[in-house]
Amino acid sequence: MKSGTESGVKILALSGGVGGAKLALGLARVLPPGALTVVANTADDFEHLGLYIAPDLDTVMYTLAGINDTERGWGLAGESWQCLDALNRLGAERWFQLGDRDLATHIRRSALLREGQNLSAVTAQLCRALDVTVDLLPMSDDPVRTLVDCEEGELPFQHYFVREQCRPRVRGFRFAGQEQARAQPAFLAMLTDPELTAVIICPSNPFVSVDPILGLPGVREALVASPAPVYAVSPIIGDRALKGPAAKMMAELGLPVSAASVAAHYRGLVDTFVMDESDATLAATINEPGMQIMMAPTVMKSLEDRERLAQQLLDRLQDCRP
Amino acid sequence: MKSGTESGVKILALSGGVGGAKLALGLARVLPPGALTVVANTADDFEHLGLYIAPDLDTVMYTLAGINDTERGWGLAGESWQCLDALNRLGAERWFQLGDRDLATHIRRSALLREGQNLSAVTAQLCRALDVTVDLLPMSDDPVRTLVDCEEGELPFQHYFVREQCRPRVRGFRFAGQEQARAQPAFLAMLTDPELTAVIICPSNPFVSVDPILGLPGVREALVASPAPVYAVSPIIGDRALKGPAAKMMAELGLPVSAASVAAHYRGLVDTFVMDESDATLAATINEPGMQIMMAPTVMKSLEDRERLAQQLLDRLQDCRP
Repeated sequence: MKSGTESGVKILALSGGVGGAKLALGLARVLPPGALTVVANTADDFEHLGLYIAPDLDTVMYTLAGINDTERGWGLAGESWQCLDALNRLGAERWFQLGDRDLATHIRRSALLREGQNLSAVTAQLCRALDVTVDLLPMSDDPVRTLVDCEEGELPFQHYFVREQCRPRVRGFRFAGQEQARAQPAFLAMLTDPELTAVIICPSNPFVSVDPILGLPGVREALVASPAPVYAVSPIIGDRALKGPAAKMMAELGLPVSAASVAAHYRGLVDTFVMDESDATLAATINEPGMQIMMAPTVMKSLEDRERLAQQLLDRLQDCRP
Repeated sequence: MKSGTESGVKILALSGGVGGAKLALGLARVLPPGALTVVANTADDFEHLGLYIAPDLDTVMYTLAGINDTERGWGLAGESWQCLDALNRLGAERWFQLGDRDLATHIRRSALLREGQNLSAVTAQLCRALDVTVDLLPMSDDPVRTLVDCEEGELPFQHYFVREQCRPRVRGFRFAGQEQARAQPAFLAMLTDPELTAVIICPSNPFVSVDPILGLPGVREALVASPAPVYAVSPIIGDRALKGPAAKMMAELGLPVSAASVAAHYRGLVDTFVMDESDATLAATINEPGMQIMMAPTVMKSLEDRERLAQQLLDRLQDCRP
C-alpha cells in the first residue's frame, strides 16, 4: 500500500482502553503511515492526587509506543512503584496504582494543561516524545465524566472501576458534561470528510468506552450521514467480555450477555458488525436492519493476532469498495 | 533532662538546608521531647513541573526523619530515578533532580496546598506521616522568593543554585514578597515568648538561608527584644564554606571570606557567635560589640559530631543562665 496521504486511505478508529488499543496497534502496523487516526475515550479521565489522569488515552498511547505492559494488561512495562510506596506512607489515597514511569506522563500532562494547553495539544506532544506516529486524539478537549448509576448511588467511573473493582450493581450511566462538550475538531472534521475510508469501532466496552464518544454533540449524526462504512468489533465473545466489566454490566442492565446485544446497541449506526468466529451459531440469528455480519478471529493475544484482525478488516473494506 | 514542657526548655533553631539540618538533628537528639522547634527557610521554594517544591523544608524534614541520603548530601536514601528518566523522555526540563520517593512529597504537598491547606498544616501532616516529632515550621505560609542579582540579571534561586550551579557572579539578593509576608504565627509567638530559652541560628548560608527568615516583618525586632540569647554557628571555617556557595558569594560581594564576615553580618543580633576550633587565630581578632565568641568543633561529619556540637551549645546555655 502507498502511504496514507498518497493512498488516500483514511481510517478512523474509536477506542477505549486495553481491548481497543490492541486493534489500534494492529491497524497501525498494517496501514500505511498517515492513514490511521485513533480517537480515545476521555470520559474515564479523572483528577487524582492533584494529577490529571487519562487512562484510555494513556493505554492507547503506551500500546502504540510499544511500551505497555502486555502481561499485566495496563500501565508500562518494567514499571516500578517507589513513588506510590512513598505516597502511601504520606497518607495519600492508595486505591489507584501509579507506577513511577507512568507518573511522569501524569505530571507532565498536568503541568502542560495548567500552562493552558488543551488536551489535544498535550497528547500530541506526549505522542511525539514517545515516537508514536499515529494521530491519537482525545474525543474532546472538554471534560466529560462517566458516572455509574449503582444501587448505592452514582459513582465516578474510576471509583466504580478501580476502587470498587466493578462490584456495585449497575443500573445505568450518565456522561456529565457530554451535552456541552465539543467533539475534538479534527475528529469531527474526519467524520464529515467525504474522503473518509471507514470508521472502526474497536472492541471496547459499548456502554462506558464507546457511548461517551458517540454521544458527543454531532458525532452520531455525522456517523450516520457519512458515506464511509462503519465497522464495529464485538468485545463480547460467547457470554464473556475478553476484558473488563462489559458482560457484567450487560447482565445487570437486563440484556442477554452476547454479541447480539452489542449489535442491537449499535443498531442504525454500524454497517458491518464483526463477531468472533466461535460465535457462528449466534451470528446466524442476528438480523439487525442494514447491518452486515463479518466473522473474524477477534481474540488478540499475540501481536500477529492484532495484525491479522486489522488486515482482515482492511481486506473486507477493499472488497466492498464501489 | 526532663521533657521540654516539663523542663521548660524551649529552643528555636533557624535553618536553611543541609548544614542547618545537621545541627537541627543534633539538637533533636540531645534535647528532651518537645523542647525544639525548627523554622526552615522557604525562600528557596519554587514550582517545578507543576509541583510545589520546598528544598530546605524537605532537607530538614528528611534529616529529622532519618531518611535523608547522607552520602550524596541531599534527597532521600535509597532513592531511584525512574520517573525523572521518563519525564526527561517526555521533554520536561531536566535540570532539577527529583527522585521517585522524593516526588511523593512534592505530589502530596502540592495536592494538599491546592485543596486549600497552608504550608504549615501540610508540613505538620507530612512530618507526622514520617514520624518526625520535632516541631518543624516553614518561616512563613506566604510566598517569599529569593532572587539572585547576577551580572546576567536576576535569577530565581533554584535557577542560580541548581540549573546554573552557582556559576554566575553575585551582586546581591532580593527576597520578593518578604515585606508582605507574615512570619509563621507559632514562630513569631515563640520569639516573643518570655520563656524562650535560646535561639540558635544554624550553620546555614547567611545571605540566602538565614536572611530570608530574619527579614520577615517583626522577626529581627523580636529577636533583638527577646531576653533569650541568640546563638549563631558559622557556616564558614577558614576561608571555605563547608557546603554550598556562601564563600563564593562572600568573595563576589567584596567581603573577606572568613567567619569574621559572618560575625559582622550578624552584628547587633547575635549574642554568641560559634566558630570552629580551627579558627582560633581569627577568633582573637573579632571584636563585635555585644557579641561573645564560643569555640566549638563545628564540622559535623558523623552523627556523634552533630550531637556533640548540639550538647556543647546547650551546656554553654546552661552555664550562662542567670
